[in-house]
Amino acid sequence: MTVRAAVAGASGYAGGEILRLLVSHPEVEIGAVTAHSSAGRRLGDVQPHLAAVADRVLVETSAESLRGHDVVFLALPHGRSAALAQQLAPGTLVVDCGADFRLRDAADWQRFYGSPHAGTWPYGLPELPGARDELKGTDRIAVPGCYPTAVTLALFPAFLAGLVEPEAVVVAASGTSGAGRVAKPHLVGSEVMGSMTPYGVGGGHRHTPELVQNLSRVAGERVTVSFTPTLAPMPRGILATCSARLRPHTAPDDVHALEDTVRSAYETAYADEPFVRLLPPGTWPATGAVLGSNTAQVQVTVDAVAGRLVCVSAIDNLTKGTAGGAVQSMNIALGLPEGTGLPMNGVAP
Amino acid sequence: MTVRAAVAGASGYAGGEILRLLVSHPEVEIGAVTAHSSAGRRLGDVQPHLAAVADRVLVETSAESLRGHDVVFLALPHGRSAALAQQLAPGTLVVDCGADFRLRDAADWQRFYGSPHAGTWPYGLPELPGARDELKGTDRIAVPGCYPTAVTLALFPAFLAGLVEPEAVVVAASGTSGAGRVAKPHLVGSEVMGSMTPYGVGGGHRHTPELVQNLSRVAGERVTVSFTPTLAPMPRGILATCSARLRPHTAPDDVHALEDTVRSAYETAYADEPFVRLLPPGTWPATGAVLGSNTAQVQVTVDAVAGRLVCVSAIDNLTKGTAGGAVQSMNIALGLPEGTGLPMNGVAP
Amino acid sequence: MTVRAAVAGASGYAGGEILRLLVSHPEVEIGAVTAHSSAGRRLGDVQPHLAAVADRVLVETSAESLRGHDVVFLALPHGRSAALAQQLAPGTLVVDCGADFRLRDAADWQRFYGSPHAGTWPYGLPELPGARDELKGTDRIAVPGCYPTAVTLALFPAFLAGLVEPEAVVVAASGTSGAGRVAKPHLVGSEVMGSMTPYGVGGGHRHTPELVQNLSRVAGERVTVSFTPTLAPMPRGILATCSARLRPHTAPDDVHALEDTVRSAYETAYADEPFVRLLPPGTWPATGAVLGSNTAQVQVTVDAVAGRLVCVSAIDNLTKGTAGGAVQSMNIALGLPEGTGLPMNGVAP
Amino acid sequence: MTVRAAVAGASGYAGGEILRLLVSHPEVEIGAVTAHSSAGRRLGDVQPHLAAVADRVLVETSAESLRGHDVVFLALPHGRSAALAQQLAPGTLVVDCGADFRLRDAADWQRFYGSPHAGTWPYGLPELPGARDELKGTDRIAVPGCYPTAVTLALFPAFLAGLVEPEAVVVAASGTSGAGRVAKPHLVGSEVMGSMTPYGVGGGHRHTPELVQNLSRVAGERVTVSFTPTLAPMPRGILATCSARLRPHTAPDDVHALEDTVRSAYETAYADEPFVRLLPPGTWPATGAVLGSNTAQVQVTVDAVAGRLVCVSAIDNLTKGTAGGAVQSMNIALGLPEGTGLPMNGVAP
Repeated sequence: MTVRAAVAGASGYAGGEILRLLVSHPEVEIGAVTAHSSAGRRLGDVQPHLAAVADRVLVETSAESLRGHDVVFLALPHGRSAALAQQLAPGTLVVDCGADFRLRDAADWQRFYGSPHAGTWPYGLPELPGARDELKGTDRIAVPGCYPTAVTLALFPAFLAGLVEPEAVVVAASGTSGAGRVAKPHLVGSEVMGSMTPYGVGGGHRHTPELVQNLSRVAGERVTVSFTPTLAPMPRGILATCSARLRPHTAPDDVHALEDTVRSAYETAYADEPFVRLLPPGTWPATGAVLGSNTAQVQVTVDAVAGRLVCVSAIDNLTKGTAGGAVQSMNIALGLPEGTGLPMNGVAP
Repeated sequence: MTVRAAVAGASGYAGGEILRLLVSHPEVEIGAVTAHSSAGRRLGDVQPHLAAVADRVLVETSAESLRGHDVVFLALPHGRSAALAQQLAPGTLVVDCGADFRLRDAADWQRFYGSPHAGTWPYGLPELPGARDELKGTDRIAVPGCYPTAVTLALFPAFLAGLVEPEAVVVAASGTSGAGRVAKPHLVGSEVMGSMTPYGVGGGHRHTPELVQNLSRVAGERVTVSFTPTLAPMPRGILATCSARLRPHTAPDDVHALEDTVRSAYETAYADEPFVRLLPPGTWPATGAVLGSNTAQVQVTVDAVAGRLVCVSAIDNLTKGTAGGAVQSMNIALGLPEGTGLPMNGVAP
Repeated sequence: MTVRAAVAGASGYAGGEILRLLVSHPEVEIGAVTAHSSAGRRLGDVQPHLAAVADRVLVETSAESLRGHDVVFLALPHGRSAALAQQLAPGTLVVDCGADFRLRDAADWQRFYGSPHAGTWPYGLPELPGARDELKGTDRIAVPGCYPTAVTLALFPAFLAGLVEPEAVVVAASGTSGAGRVAKPHLVGSEVMGSMTPYGVGGGHRHTPELVQNLSRVAGERVTVSFTPTLAPMPRGILATCSARLRPHTAPDDVHALEDTVRSAYETAYADEPFVRLLPPGTWPATGAVLGSNTAQVQVTVDAVAGRLVCVSAIDNLTKGTAGGAVQSMNIALGLPEGTGLPMNGVAP
Repeated sequence: MTVRAAVAGASGYAGGEILRLLVSHPEVEIGAVTAHSSAGRRLGDVQPHLAAVADRVLVETSAESLRGHDVVFLALPHGRSAALAQQLAPGTLVVDCGADFRLRDAADWQRFYGSPHAGTWPYGLPELPGARDELKGTDRIAVPGCYPTAVTLALFPAFLAGLVEPEAVVVAASGTSGAGRVAKPHLVGSEVMGSMTPYGVGGGHRHTPELVQNLSRVAGERVTVSFTPTLAPMPRGILATCSARLRPHTAPDDVHALEDTVRSAYETAYADEPFVRLLPPGTWPATGAVLGSNTAQVQVTVDAVAGRLVCVSAIDNLTKGTAGGAVQSMNIALGLPEGTGLPMNGVAP
């Protein structure tokens, strides 16, 4: 089986990463690569790391240029996917890496994005309970945000097992590519190297409602999330440090028994997941170990004195957090082996 | 007034930073600079950035080499200060940058360090309520740990004003110099660049009891702290992201009123502090902005949906977090103007 | 065809990179993975990025553990390969990533390494004129040093075309992984981040005679090379900036004609090379664009005022500069398509 | 003596660094701080590291706002200084950190900047033979470019002593702040971290004629310079790696004698220079060691096989390379002790 795939927004970081992965995907043939202001340029000039497709020419992003493909990846600014998608025939698998179709609650969308809600598509986080069933055979996929991928993988087993109160605290560090390929003053190298700084503090980051949605779905009750993203001096990677108060009935006097219960919940959740690596006890995730790979590293422990479960995940925001998750979900939708074309090994050191 | 100061452990990062500051201190004359394995070497060979004192020769750290100074800075591994200090005459101001004399509770010390407790000295965080009074005229100072400096400055105004429940959650990112000048495999440049990773997760970091001590002292009740330090790809700097549940009586329906109350508490706490800069609303601390300076940047906000106060601080772990805090406290002890010789401006970008 | 490959020194950076590539190589089955001080440990504990082979256990490096494989990669400290190699039966393809068999001149070896010369094997830089013929069907390969790979690819077309005097000046910046996985004080993250420094200045670096050997072989006369390596604050990558005086007969008054001649020489040299990308005029190599890939970026220009040809190359020191070059050469030796299992695209940004 | 100083272009990197230094200068009172698009904003919002002057308000850059000061620092884009300067009364010391008045040859200016030449002012590199005499009492100073400062300090002693042929090869790595405070796509953090890349290759960089001017002035004959700047993944710092062919009569058979001759030349040149540190033999400059300081580290050696003298310097491009050099030259012009207010120690690690 060979599928023909187009990539819209191929001049950006997400689009570039999708192409990097598709080049190595044995069942995919790359069709149109589209952009807006870079249309007409050679891909090699815009994405100099993509040597294998350097001579491909970017065409204008439009329904016309995207038609006639089996799969269309959209890596566009939010608010741009809906109009394009409805011009693409049902049967074409549309994989949207933007935010437009992630949220179920129209009011959430309106509050955080300030525009009408476009709808909700099957959610491309296969590890989330129930998600794989929705992805099989679908022709529309909403790829999760990078933070929600990292945070959900760190926390959901705890909620699934009912171990914690429905109030999570998350501090996540992201590499700068998470901000996209934009030349804003605060993203200039001189400003970011050697510096860490938070942003969107106090609940304002647009990934917050998506976090709440995912964890609430698993918990079966409304979960609040105090989410603080921080910008870290590295190009890629998310380290999500998460915690939640342990439920009284899960906090026996015996700390070791509690630790066993917690570990068990995570081992169960990730026993058969090819792209989540629950680390051996005592070792902790590092973003450097997952660079360029579709692997999420996860670890969990109990802080008995503070009465909290603490869990940490590391992903590459552009791979597992965007393009890799997109390809993994595409594989499921198309009935391919889930790991086809996806690197498990990081590029380290 | 000119005081003669010795620096023990001058070959390490903390000792080097003390020297960097003392060179510019108008009231200090640098006396003995001591080390152990580097004794006999020129300072310029060991600390090539200290051009102004490059020709000074390191002597062996001992009571003999440290005697006869007005001030002795100890920048030694924990457990080494007590024996030296008791051989230095009362009247000599001993400023210990190590952990030995920070904790008040001997059981805490025993649990985290596994050795007998040496005692408790006046605590060198002048901004902490009550600390300045203890520092004036003292001849013994325990310089705080770098994380406790950052975290206490971020959180104590909230506890002082009774705004939050006594359960704090802290995730802090530190530059690699916080680990000291040691060639351990996980600190090698190839491993740390481009990577973030947590350590001491679950309450195991030795700065945890110091955090609890500081915040409990201000809160007037036992505060628990869930503390997760992370290693960030930068040489210096700590960004402490902290939060705590807002007390019900401080959570009026009117979010703006709540925000005003919170801001007011911080403005009051820092109105006269020369080295704490409460940022204008909407801007957030960045470690890059305080590099090499004794300034702490602080900001606070309210996450009304999650019901938490979120506060963030940024310091240079070696300056305000160690050597700068030490010199600031020395100034107070000696009756000098508190800011003498201390840079307020960071080196940026 | 499936070949069984062992990797000796699998706990190091070069060994880890070989494994990363072999996992994706469709014709290779990974056999023994060996180490010395890490023998007995799981690969996932030592190389946490290698999720796909995390459960493999490292065994002691020895002739016994390496026997019975079709291919044996040696990623060992210099001086260790010869003894092992002679215990491996002829017919086993031995690919040595160390220095032992690179030099042809025993005196050069003696002068730079201070031990007896072990011999000379076919040289694993396929792009070097004549190298492919020596590699086909061989059972012994000496993988080039990382700097010689970068520098030779930048300069040899100029010497091949007789454009420059036999005196090259090379300044190359390398990421820290080039120093290997060793916890030396000057390689600690705190020291290397934010800093650039040269080493081995004045002709002392051990890759110097290899550079001279390669360029002299192409030039047909003795070439001298002034080579200064510098340590750059990044984990991976080599940027080699090279120049040589233009030969009088190649310096016509018409600069444009000269530029055409120079470009022509490079286009000819690299017309059919899958892993060398001669960039479009006006764009210059960047190490960030080749991270994790087997691609070398090359560019060349003429400085008419200074009378020099200036050429620059960028490679990933661990991929094209070590493990990728090794696999590429293995492919040739075994008669496989040269690019099998080798990524052309870098991981960027 | 207290002088009142204005800083034009205080919102940029050079202007910010000038302010950082002036705050600690005991003889300077800071007057107007001016900017263009940031006029009206508080300095603390634009330069958050300048805590000591955070409440100062930026005013529009104009002759009016700059008048009435003893000293005016201009940190403006090239081409902007001439018009302003001629509106400032003679007797006001104007220190121009831009390029406008550095070059002596109008044709050089025209060729590299494409506009009419404004003139030539005394050159603010005090270490250059003859420069101090021109600076004493002057009311106009042209501060050197950052690369010319680093390269001239590395090379001029060799030319002064007649040790080398008049053809230098220079490869210099610069931190990103050298490009100024501009949000260009190639300067974004995601692009620069982990990557090195050259620019202005082949003689096109605008600092080239300034290099040639400085070295020719010392050599007493026309020197050609092959200059390749590279962008390094760090915010600050220049490492200049330079070499030139040794003159035959300076190349005795005895390498040690030659090394002594070379070292002697450098020791003589820098015997009394407070801000140039000729390192002990065998140790090499590192940009990390001079961060934030006005010190230049220099080292030199002989590559006898290649027949070249190799010399290396490290400076902070914003301090010694711009603002520090400016203040040092101001001190000379005003008759103050040359080192007043200038840090010799770097901020490291």
